[in-house]
Amino acid sequence: MKNIILDDTIVALSTPSGVGAIGVIRLSGPQAISISEKIFPALKLHEAASHTLHFGLAMDGKEVVDEAVAGLFKAPKSYTCQDVVEISCHGSAFIIQRILQLLIKHGARPAKPGEFTMRAFLNGRFDLSQAEAVSDLIASESEAAHHIAMNQMRGGFSGELKQLRQKLMDFASLVELELDFSEEDVEFANRAQLVGLLTEMQSKIEKLSESFRLGNVLKNGVATVIAGRPNAGKSTLLNNLLNEERAIVSDIPGTTRDTIEEIISIQDIAFRLTDTAGIRHAADIIEREGVERTMQKIKQAAIVLYLFDAEEMSAKDVLADIKKLGNSESIAIIPVANKTDMLTEVEAKAKFKEIKNIHFISAKSGKGIEELKNHLYTTALQGATIKESVILTNSRHYEALQSTLQNIGNAKKGIETKLSGELVASDIRSALSHLGEITGEVTTNDLLGNIFSRFCIGK
Amino acid sequence: MKNIILDDTIVALSTPSGVGAIGVIRLSGPQAISISEKIFPALKLHEAASHTLHFGLAMDGKEVVDEAVAGLFKAPKSYTCQDVVEISCHGSAFIIQRILQLLIKHGARPAKPGEFTMRAFLNGRFDLSQAEAVSDLIASESEAAHHIAMNQMRGGFSGELKQLRQKLMDFASLVELELDFSEEDVEFANRAQLVGLLTEMQSKIEKLSESFRLGNVLKNGVATVIAGRPNAGKSTLLNNLLNEERAIVSDIPGTTRDTIEEIISIQDIAFRLTDTAGIRHAADIIEREGVERTMQKIKQAAIVLYLFDAEEMSAKDVLADIKKLGNSESIAIIPVANKTDMLTEVEAKAKFKEIKNIHFISAKSGKGIEELKNHLYTTALQGATIKESVILTNSRHYEALQSTLQNIGNAKKGIETKLSGELVASDIRSALSHLGEITGEVTTNDLLGNIFSRFCIGK
Repeated sequence: MKNIILDDTIVALSTPSGVGAIGVIRLSGPQAISISEKIFPALKLHEAASHTLHFGLAMDGKEVVDEAVAGLFKAPKSYTCQDVVEISCHGSAFIIQRILQLLIKHGARPAKPGEFTMRAFLNGRFDLSQAEAVSDLIASESEAAHHIAMNQMRGGFSGELKQLRQKLMDFASLVELELDFSEEDVEFANRAQLVGLLTEMQSKIEKLSESFRLGNVLKNGVATVIAGRPNAGKSTLLNNLLNEERAIVSDIPGTTRDTIEEIISIQDIAFRLTDTAGIRHAADIIEREGVERTMQKIKQAAIVLYLFDAEEMSAKDVLADIKKLGNSESIAIIPVANKTDMLTEVEAKAKFKEIKNIHFISAKSGKGIEELKNHLYTTALQGATIKESVILTNSRHYEALQSTLQNIGNAKKGIETKLSGELVASDIRSALSHLGEITGEVTTNDLLGNIFSRFCIGK
Repeated sequence: MKNIILDDTIVALSTPSGVGAIGVIRLSGPQAISISEKIFPALKLHEAASHTLHFGLAMDGKEVVDEAVAGLFKAPKSYTCQDVVEISCHGSAFIIQRILQLLIKHGARPAKPGEFTMRAFLNGRFDLSQAEAVSDLIASESEAAHHIAMNQMRGGFSGELKQLRQKLMDFASLVELELDFSEEDVEFANRAQLVGLLTEMQSKIEKLSESFRLGNVLKNGVATVIAGRPNAGKSTLLNNLLNEERAIVSDIPGTTRDTIEEIISIQDIAFRLTDTAGIRHAADIIEREGVERTMQKIKQAAIVLYLFDAEEMSAKDVLADIKKLGNSESIAIIPVANKTDMLTEVEAKAKFKEIKNIHFISAKSGKGIEELKNHLYTTALQGATIKESVILTNSRHYEALQSTLQNIGNAKKGIETKLSGELVASDIRSALSHLGEITGEVTTNDLLGNIFSRFCIGK
């Protein structure tokens, strides 16, 4: 990490490319102000106060390139903790390119993806998990994803993890100290207290790990498949959920040849809905061509809405179909009886009384759709509440926590079985290292490169 | 114009839509600051100085929507001469929508296209031709188009037009005064001086009008067609000019079925190059299907590169083809002898000595291409130099100038033929009105609506 250079000045367009009213070009580094003064010769930015805006002519020699505004953030009170200048120019691709080229000519270097945020992290503005949340925040498409990213960016779980890590580190130094006095058989670290701390950490980390599946689902949207036999009304249900005519609906069985994916928001969660080619005769669910894709989609799903025709199907057939859809614990199958406008409610309920969790709808009239949406929402949340919980969304964090759990488990076992202090110390060191990877106390250039390369340029 | 409302507060995203590091939301109007304070409850923007930047939490009630920066421009020192707040938030579509919705909930109104610039114009920040240049500036794709738009935005010809208009207005009031004393046959306005001024205006307006064709060409790019018989090497020439393999090149005559348009920059001018379906046997240039499109393209072109095979074609055939390409004065035809690597330079020059302005190239080897580019450039400029001239690009301005010329001509003739003062005064009034339309001293809601509706939203 030592050899990451921070003393050059980086530049990038921070707004999306394309024609717009304005574009914002961002500079960060020790020369940000002096380079800006070269293209704004009339402005004395060095003498100006931080957090001020300056209207000026952007010049290329004697030619006016643009009338622009320079926003000044002086170190350390900026995003990167370095001097930052943000140039708002007219949003023409030609002008933006000209100004970028001029700034580079005057000594700035084009920024790599995420390099502004990496500088913010390296200068201690926030920890690594907070930096990662910036990228999630920009990509967030639903209220839940936005909420989780914002929570993580504003500290989220990393504060608590850092506290636990600090406590463990205090113990670790005592344990290491014991090793220096190993011949004297002293015990600086109270074993009962240490085991207590390790147990507390285990419990917290396990809880956090458990939130990962939900977090992942909320971040990326809940993969939801609508499956069922031909003509069960799958496309009509999809349209009903979408409130618009997206899929082609017809009365010919098997109309929906390919899978279609649509995103809907139910309250604050995004659902990725897939309508599938109809599952044909129950007997050959898997065999038939085209149906294989359905089965693949179902395997990747978090929720399957199994739709069937309440009039035509028997409870026995429905149960057989559901069985064939697989019984993985990670997939929630919701049986949905459609075309219930053909039967009375009492008839329908009696006919399918043995099927659990069943919903009765009419995709055509829209009856029962709101209830189905609510059921989808609570199924996705699995009893959690987004607003109050700390939720893990990042697989890198999840893996580091799994390794930490392993190390803590080993350390505890080592203490209980009175293993040598050296082995216990080694497990604790590993736990500290894995925990530190999450918040960035422990890191490598490769890790940083890998994380920030996924950012957009200009952030 | 009186009924255009300026006392509400407008809001729009001013940066291009799409995911980016940051998005900028702009507010303008008397409530811009108080509305911003509602989403940044911790900021006291009313008390802050103009031209300052404020980091703050954008809140929806108790929920943090984003960490953002508010840039403050207090009236009249802003783009619109009203209070303006620019909110830089994270560039997520979700966050941008949330913040826009919040601002609207708190009393802002979504801005119409160009409404910020219209407010700037209505508040006297610049005249109408300058406001129009803002839109041209954003759309500019070449250095020439950028230069002309920047020149116009910074005053350009409108300063001179305003001066001439003011002088004419002074005379007009004297002429009008004479009408009040019509029975006394007084002459307040010196007729010789008036005719002198009208002549000066004629000359200046004619010069400006003449620049329009060039201005239009520079603004939109020079429509350039590559025409010629099948297998003359048109696609290879296009590729050579483009420096990349864009069109499909083959040895089969007539490979290029459809027209292809590509933009290249030669120095500071953009050329819109069209490769065309080959002109077949000279005899049936116009008749053959597909060739009609070529002829249409040629009619719309400013420059036609007529390419022919130097080895296969006789000078007579070439001259016949050129004649068939049309002889409109507004189209410059440049004959280009290709495949001159088959002949010696002396042979080629001797063979086509009767053809004027001819170029000898080898599209295959690239010989002569640079010279051809230079020739294209000087042909497009028609002897003008972009940097020094005032160039007209806007057809609305052109038409107003034509009407002004007509009025001035009539007024001059009226004075010379000693027509009644009332008729002369009427012509001068019309001239003043048409001139005033250009810079916006004379305008209507319809005209403004028409002009600003072509802007992008947020500008």
